[in-house]
Amino acid sequence: MVFENIRIVLVNTKHAGNIGSAARAMKTMGLSSLCLVDPAAEFPAEQATVLASGAADILEMAEVTKTLKQAVEDCVFVVGVSARIRGVSLPVYTPADSAEQILKEATVNKVALIFGREDRGLTNEELRLCHQQVFIPAVDTFKSLNLAASVQILAYELRKIALQKDKRQLVPVKDKQQPMATSGQMEYFYEHLHNMLDSAGFFIHSNPEKIMAKIRKIYGKARPDQDEINILRGILTAMQIKSGQE
Amino acid sequence: MVFENIRIVLVNTKHAGNIGSAARAMKTMGLSSLCLVDPAAEFPAEQATVLASGAADILEMAEVTKTLKQAVEDCVFVVGVSARIRGVSLPVYTPADSAEQILKEATVNKVALIFGREDRGLTNEELRLCHQQVFIPAVDTFKSLNLAASVQILAYELRKIALQKDKRQLVPVKDKQQPMATSGQMEYFYEHLHNMLDSAGFFIHSNPEKIMAKIRKIYGKARPDQDEINILRGILTAMQIKSGQE
Repeated sequence: MVFENIRIVLVNTKHAGNIGSAARAMKTMGLSSLCLVDPAAEFPAEQATVLASGAADILEMAEVTKTLKQAVEDCVFVVGVSARIRGVSLPVYTPADSAEQILKEATVNKVALIFGREDRGLTNEELRLCHQQVFIPAVDTFKSLNLAASVQILAYELRKIALQKDKRQLVPVKDKQQPMATSGQMEYFYEHLHNMLDSAGFFIHSNPEKIMAKIRKIYGKARPDQDEINILRGILTAMQIKSGQE
Repeated sequence: MVFENIRIVLVNTKHAGNIGSAARAMKTMGLSSLCLVDPAAEFPAEQATVLASGAADILEMAEVTKTLKQAVEDCVFVVGVSARIRGVSLPVYTPADSAEQILKEATVNKVALIFGREDRGLTNEELRLCHQQVFIPAVDTFKSLNLAASVQILAYELRKIALQKDKRQLVPVKDKQQPMATSGQMEYFYEHLHNMLDSAGFFIHSNPEKIMAKIRKIYGKARPDQDEINILRGILTAMQIKSGQE
């Protein structure tokens, strides 16, 4: 049940074989939900099925979306796996620490775990959709982990911690009844806020992207629930009417 | 130094590509010593080199032996990775527990970590050469881990524990340590927001106190720092100017 809530998302994968190997890695550890964002490789493909070995069922059930936004729209917790620490000021965790949080979230909500392109990983824009970043501790001189190998490590940590937790009780992360805001709702809010700020001249002396990244971080920490995102959007609407933007 | 004492031994590997992928998995985690026991695949092979990606140096330095006995002759601690629990009464450990022991041994001695055939793993005779067995916790219904994926998991655990031991812990990357917003600053922000919302008619159909309590909760979760509270207040000011309240 918890594992069904964890979606593995592969962005723009170049080699069909890697998609198959990733599916196999997932299945060995009990994961089954796979989403492919705009695969660069042809899919479905024979090479994927061959390398999936006994995990072809995961490929058959895999969803394909055009954008990452669509792939994570219904998720309340989004984690990006990236070897690079870049300009996006996301909190960075080890695979084990992140797996712990993913499992907690997945007791009640849908969670996405995102893996980038073979050669270039995730873009800053893609990382901005994430609540946190996972850094697999490869050596500095050779960080080139194979895509399926990265999936295997995260899947392994998830299963390892789930097995440990089975002994304790998996306590749902929120005891309040309100479901959390989805990634899609948060994006809508950010877009709304961005447009308001833009028309208020807020970005005139500064870089809108940088400011919006900081704003995302603030609300990313707050992690609003349904009730709260409605209030936040209500505030924007009220201000908009007041200022005659409506 | 410790890692140089850890030899990865692949027994009777059938696919050259798996040898290459295993080398790549090793190198990402800082391992370099590879020994191939009677490879069923032709070796060296182009497919191995291609899949090794940037880890061809490990293939070039790899030793090839006829028997497993020869491969582990100079080792004082020998560990076999096997998905099967069979008639050999070896102590069985998790990857993490075994990695801990391997690292301890490898500070002074040569250690071998053995991976069996893609299809049939290690024979009982081969397991008898081992001091202990590692069991990767795959799900019961699909234990079919790819060879390189198994190498990746063990290599990852070795590096993870080595990093912990070094006290060179992976420090989650934190942004520059901004001091947190003070209570006074937060109150000022809430007051500002309250006045704006009031004059925008936001409270007409609802209880202002209740709404403000909810808003406090959202920003209370976010715990803004100095930089962030300035952005939040800047947003209010921009909206206020825009709506002509100023």
